[in-house]
Amino acid sequence: MTDERNTGAPALDAILFDDAGLVPVIAQQHDTAEVLMVAWMNKEAVTETLATGQVCYWSRSRQQLWRKGEQSGQRQRLLELRLDCDGDCLLALVDQTGVACHTGRRTCFFRAFRGTELETIVDVDIDPVTLYGDGETPSRRT
Amino acid sequence: MTDERNTGAPALDAILFDDAGLVPVIAQQHDTAEVLMVAWMNKEAVTETLATGQVCYWSRSRQQLWRKGEQSGQRQRLLELRLDCDGDCLLALVDQTGVACHTGRRTCFFRAFRGTELETIVDVDIDPVTLYGDGETPSRRT
Repeated sequence: MTDERNTGAPALDAILFDDAGLVPVIAQQHDTAEVLMVAWMNKEAVTETLATGQVCYWSRSRQQLWRKGEQSGQRQRLLELRLDCDGDCLLALVDQTGVACHTGRRTCFFRAFRGTELETIVDVDIDPVTLYGDGETPSRRT
Repeated sequence: MTDERNTGAPALDAILFDDAGLVPVIAQQHDTAEVLMVAWMNKEAVTETLATGQVCYWSRSRQQLWRKGEQSGQRQRLLELRLDCDGDCLLALVDQTGVACHTGRRTCFFRAFRGTELETIVDVDIDPVTLYGDGETPSRRT
């Protein structure tokens, strides 16, 4: 018997993966339109995300599938996946549980250029220790 | 005399450019929060964008600075530039004149995954021939 789960193919063939087999993915909160984060997917991660409705990235630092929120509970439910004109970037409309950023902020884009300085413009919502445990906070999650 | 234009340094030093000297940039319409496009900048493009307030990318296909809208008139005025937690992705809040996409659509993310197919969910606002002239429409602009 064939696996009848929706794997997204042949739509998947329209995605232009880079030389490392990856494509960047923007996660955007579906209702507020806030840009939450950017991470990467390989074909397997795209397929799993479409099949399960839970966003799964590829962790470049750990070289493995990264089921967002598996450790921290800060999961992303997929509402829609979009592809750009060139086929080399994805936009995931998601419903983010809690915070997207490993620093405990809602969004990873919490620093803004102000003249020659960077200003932090987003407060921490959740102490990272709460998310990952003391001493376990990752330096980065991508 | 030194050039006293605001070049964004030392904030620029927080940007983690990849091996090709590039960083991905999301352009988001500042008031509607619509994600318009993703392109790339090198350090020179970031510096010019911050100095002029007009978004300038680096064209990977043409290997030169790409002053968005220089040919088509569909320019992007910068309102704010943000950096993510890892320092390897920028978010540009812009005011987009006309359309961002070379296909004449407001956004490059005009295709959505629907089961095994991709559905076009955004209409063309401006005929690309109007933007680039007959026979001059680029196949891609990044």
